[in-house]
Amino acid sequence: MKFLSFRFEGALLYGVKVKKEEAAWNIVRIHKELLPNESVPATLLEGIQNGMELQETVRKCISAAVESDQVSRYKVKFMDLVWEAPIPRTPKNVMCIGKNYQDHVLEMGSEKDLPKDIVVFTKASTTITGDHAPIPPHEELTKELDYEGELAVVIGKKGKNIPEQQAIDYVFGYTILNDITARDLQAKHKQFFLGKSLDETCPMGPYLVSKDEIPYPNELSIVTKVNDEIRQNGNTQDMIFSIEEIISTLSKGMTLEPGDVIATGTPAGVGKGLNPPIFLKKGDQVKVSIQGIGTLNNGIGE
Amino acid sequence: MKFLSFRFEGALLYGVKVKKEEAAWNIVRIHKELLPNESVPATLLEGIQNGMELQETVRKCISAAVESDQVSRYKVKFMDLVWEAPIPRTPKNVMCIGKNYQDHVLEMGSEKDLPKDIVVFTKASTTITGDHAPIPPHEELTKELDYEGELAVVIGKKGKNIPEQQAIDYVFGYTILNDITARDLQAKHKQFFLGKSLDETCPMGPYLVSKDEIPYPNELSIVTKVNDEIRQNGNTQDMIFSIEEIISTLSKGMTLEPGDVIATGTPAGVGKGLNPPIFLKKGDQVKVSIQGIGTLNNGIGE
Repeated sequence: MKFLSFRFEGALLYGVKVKKEEAAWNIVRIHKELLPNESVPATLLEGIQNGMELQETVRKCISAAVESDQVSRYKVKFMDLVWEAPIPRTPKNVMCIGKNYQDHVLEMGSEKDLPKDIVVFTKASTTITGDHAPIPPHEELTKELDYEGELAVVIGKKGKNIPEQQAIDYVFGYTILNDITARDLQAKHKQFFLGKSLDETCPMGPYLVSKDEIPYPNELSIVTKVNDEIRQNGNTQDMIFSIEEIISTLSKGMTLEPGDVIATGTPAGVGKGLNPPIFLKKGDQVKVSIQGIGTLNNGIGE
Repeated sequence: MKFLSFRFEGALLYGVKVKKEEAAWNIVRIHKELLPNESVPATLLEGIQNGMELQETVRKCISAAVESDQVSRYKVKFMDLVWEAPIPRTPKNVMCIGKNYQDHVLEMGSEKDLPKDIVVFTKASTTITGDHAPIPPHEELTKELDYEGELAVVIGKKGKNIPEQQAIDYVFGYTILNDITARDLQAKHKQFFLGKSLDETCPMGPYLVSKDEIPYPNELSIVTKVNDEIRQNGNTQDMIFSIEEIISTLSKGMTLEPGDVIATGTPAGVGKGLNPPIFLKKGDQVKVSIQGIGTLNNGIGE
């Protein structure tokens, strides 16, 4: 299932993509009007936190809508909604893996920078924004705003000390994340947090795709375009640390929780790595596409 | 006021220290039984998020208890409660300033490590624990568990791009934080997050002291003892970046929110800085005392 969160008529709602239509089932309305006595979560995060039966609940909701005499009442056309990140506020900061693609490490430095151990930093949860949301250029603070297209894993089950072989059991699904970075602040403050945490520099979405639809997450093509020019053209099979290794390592002594988001790193081709570097400027359009998920599209705006 | 959060008879409650007694006013019970029609927050975090009138509400509660004919019913003796961190779950990860005392920078490295710009990393919000809670030794993961006694600032008002001159307007109060660190993991993973984010390695408390009681937060003595031996003996006046500079810099482009916790760095004397280094081991007792706040006391246990 392709889950999404969105705003419609002022309310924060969630749903799933209607097959072969550019529209979402409005699960919140179906619950309220057709299944008021069923226990249906109010938000996608709540659904993930309640456990893995979310898909079953949602299927029941869609059936009720289809069998009603007003099917269109329970759909929201994409053109009528405002996209939100699937999880607009994560329980912890967004966790990000640094230096996870060899070619990206080399474009940013040299072989000595290749990590022997996983590098993890965070983005403040206030950075999260949705598909199609304008990214503030933060011009007074940075001259080096850059993109990083990434596959993000969303945790579905609380866990600690998770063995690699069981790691995928703890995954709810996958989404696309653009780890917008102020390179000058990242360098100046040494630890990455500040350069990675300007408001609304973590677009995420458009969908959170449940893991049953993505059986091979370590073999997905990932392409980033700026103004329709291909800048990053990678594949998650080139990650130095696989999704299983990442989940296992992060959970060593640290409890992972439903709704936690882990961005798995970016392939080569960021603006800083170009010669000469090209940074993002007002009016640029950045699109990150990942096989099986879709395209996350954000302009650099006000 | 000295605010605290605690567990009593299974419930998560909060209150304020009763003057000259080792007990807390049980604000939640006072609200329920004596002032059921008043709007009183259910948690300390909610009170901070609702705005600055929390102290007024609490004063009203205490008056109602004092005027009742069962004063003792509305107090909980410290010996009968389980301490929780004043904010058991922060809205963002705990933000920490690295390398903020010159002597500490020198004991960990050399003059070239003195920061020109503020260094910020985070601890996962799952690290937070209370006064007197045992710190897990995480023996299977680290051989170098270390303490860092720190003054922590709790934000009281949402803000962004806050000028230094107005920074204290955005502070709710101050607490003590022990930034327990796995030095080997901190070094191995380069970015500090993982070495700083093992479960229950962020004891905080015992009190969150409202800022009116601490007019000079940049002039507080801070002492850390391990098994009653003084290890750190510093003063916040030796911070390289003052509280005002920290708040102003962090809020540049990043929205600070009520309940955000910022640890301001640790003075010299950590275990790693001793010659030879001495790390924490099971049974050790670590006490961090800050002038005007109190003592945060945690044993290394299971």
